[in-house]
Amino acid sequence: MDSQRYNYDDLYVHTRAAFKKMGCSQEDASTCANVLIAAELRGIPSHGIMRLKDYMLMWQKGRINTKPKVQIVHETPTTAVVDADQAFGAVAGTRAMRIAIKKAEKYGSAWISVRNSSHFGIAGYYSMMAMKKEMIGLSMTNANPLVAPTFSIDKLLGTNPVAVAIPAGKENPFVADFATSPIARGKLAIKEREGLEVPEGYVQSREGIPSTDPGIITRGGAIVPLGSDYAHGSHKGYSMAAIVDILSAVLSRANFGPFVPPQVPYLNQKEGAPGKGLGHFFGVMRIDGFQPADDFKAYMDQWIQTFKNARPAKDQGEVLVPGEPERRYEEKYRKNGIPVPDKVIADIKEVYEILELKFNL
Amino acid sequence: MDSQRYNYDDLYVHTRAAFKKMGCSQEDASTCANVLIAAELRGIPSHGIMRLKDYMLMWQKGRINTKPKVQIVHETPTTAVVDADQAFGAVAGTRAMRIAIKKAEKYGSAWISVRNSSHFGIAGYYSMMAMKKEMIGLSMTNANPLVAPTFSIDKLLGTNPVAVAIPAGKENPFVADFATSPIARGKLAIKEREGLEVPEGYVQSREGIPSTDPGIITRGGAIVPLGSDYAHGSHKGYSMAAIVDILSAVLSRANFGPFVPPQVPYLNQKEGAPGKGLGHFFGVMRIDGFQPADDFKAYMDQWIQTFKNARPAKDQGEVLVPGEPERRYEEKYRKNGIPVPDKVIADIKEVYEILELKFNL
Repeated sequence: MDSQRYNYDDLYVHTRAAFKKMGCSQEDASTCANVLIAAELRGIPSHGIMRLKDYMLMWQKGRINTKPKVQIVHETPTTAVVDADQAFGAVAGTRAMRIAIKKAEKYGSAWISVRNSSHFGIAGYYSMMAMKKEMIGLSMTNANPLVAPTFSIDKLLGTNPVAVAIPAGKENPFVADFATSPIARGKLAIKEREGLEVPEGYVQSREGIPSTDPGIITRGGAIVPLGSDYAHGSHKGYSMAAIVDILSAVLSRANFGPFVPPQVPYLNQKEGAPGKGLGHFFGVMRIDGFQPADDFKAYMDQWIQTFKNARPAKDQGEVLVPGEPERRYEEKYRKNGIPVPDKVIADIKEVYEILELKFNL
Repeated sequence: MDSQRYNYDDLYVHTRAAFKKMGCSQEDASTCANVLIAAELRGIPSHGIMRLKDYMLMWQKGRINTKPKVQIVHETPTTAVVDADQAFGAVAGTRAMRIAIKKAEKYGSAWISVRNSSHFGIAGYYSMMAMKKEMIGLSMTNANPLVAPTFSIDKLLGTNPVAVAIPAGKENPFVADFATSPIARGKLAIKEREGLEVPEGYVQSREGIPSTDPGIITRGGAIVPLGSDYAHGSHKGYSMAAIVDILSAVLSRANFGPFVPPQVPYLNQKEGAPGKGLGHFFGVMRIDGFQPADDFKAYMDQWIQTFKNARPAKDQGEVLVPGEPERRYEEKYRKNGIPVPDKVIADIKEVYEILELKFNL
């Protein structure tokens, strides 16, 4: 796919302008742009500005509220349910995380479940907000149902990601951000377009038989949970995805599992959905809630050094601490620009035409 | 292996007597016995009374303190580090979980990291303590290093289990309790004794090459993380095991990763260990911190019904909600007795002889 490099500021300013034209406040538009560009910088373009067009079409259909009243509907000193009032997920997520941080500043930790939200981009963005405040940050979200539980053919779970960010001292921080399935939807689509097979252990047929056809999930098949099959622990991946679903949606009364509203404009919400929108879950814990912050960071540095200095397996270059690959992308892309496929730029141009904005990338 | 059935009470009373003779208080002896017998009841004998002999030998070597002063060394309203003073893990875990429940009763949630502890049995025991108080319970522990991170040959992580227990209404509760590796150490040992191979995706050789030899981990090999290989997401399993290790040990200043003290009497602590004992992490959140408890339980019932009524894959009987297999064992074993191999009974008899107790099983 042809692509060109664009610098961070140009992409950010262009993306922010689109959100502003949809009716977002300056602050919310900045937030939405920030979250999408963060995905680009960290080498996760599937959650980057290629989403802008779908976001705009969702807004056009009235499924996103750009003037949301995001508010707490139930709380204790350290827990809350936040109703996002159909906001963009980035707006819901950052506001919920700010509430969590504020509660934790007072009480040591806080846990927020969010309903009535939508696609929130990369989970790691929110956990890193806490990390920058010397807190351990956790974020998760449920998502379009594509994954079948172990032993089932029904797509009842999303690829439900979990992100945990942990501050360090001199070392780069620990930032794990991973789906609870072996493969992401986007990567299957790419293989399908290229006419390629995938290894066994990613998808199954409509009967639940292992398959190597990446297109099978559009014909009744499903993605399998992390672990791939029961013998290799797929019930553990299923458990993780289920925990994400329950904390994000049952706690908040969002839609769970099979009822999660599709986050694409051409698919409608299922009839009889029991909850409100899509759900997220956020948590923060102050590191000085456990020991003096500097002591923690020094010990965390020792943990990181132990892992990054581990001996590599045969024919492997090095052992990576979670977050390191994304950090390297960010360093490179900030310096040399972010590669964006021409197709994505054409989509943004189209968004600009619809929104009657002057395109200048 | 020959085995006989024993009833719950007989096993419990015999196990408790052994702990009491080691110097545990009546309460602590009951706790330790409870945790071991709970594993038996739930069909996880690898964490049951077969551990008693090793526990006693560890105590004989002075590595367990049966009169521990388990205390908070640092805290906020909702966080704490607890030093377990070399207690049996069951004593450390139940006391820490009680502290968490008490804090959460006041503030909505609480999170405790424990150091200077030892093997704590099944993780699910502690998360279920919270569940019985209408709270979501989380428990995890680090463990003997047997697992190599993705791309590495060094055994830097344990099979680090995670347990999450969530109350329901009319339905049986959700209790996930799983290792972050595809296979447990105990199951590999059984295959090795039987001279059998294991599927690829469980273990690797000392060079990091996939292997089907279950004995290879005693000859420089390692267990791989959940996901089995990078293509199937082993970096996600590695991330999970790493999160467990950091929350259990870096937060509390226990020993992390490769420095976790062996929980068997014939292996000694590594030189230069940077922390204190082994670490655990516990968390609780009141369900009424998010919505009225009865509303939550009704919605959780709906979640559970959706999953247990899912259509099974070809040749599969049914779809299981996490915790259901263990619940069925418990129901059956409470009624018909718990099968215990003769070898384990002989070990207990030996423990009784050493402790000069009258064996009467």
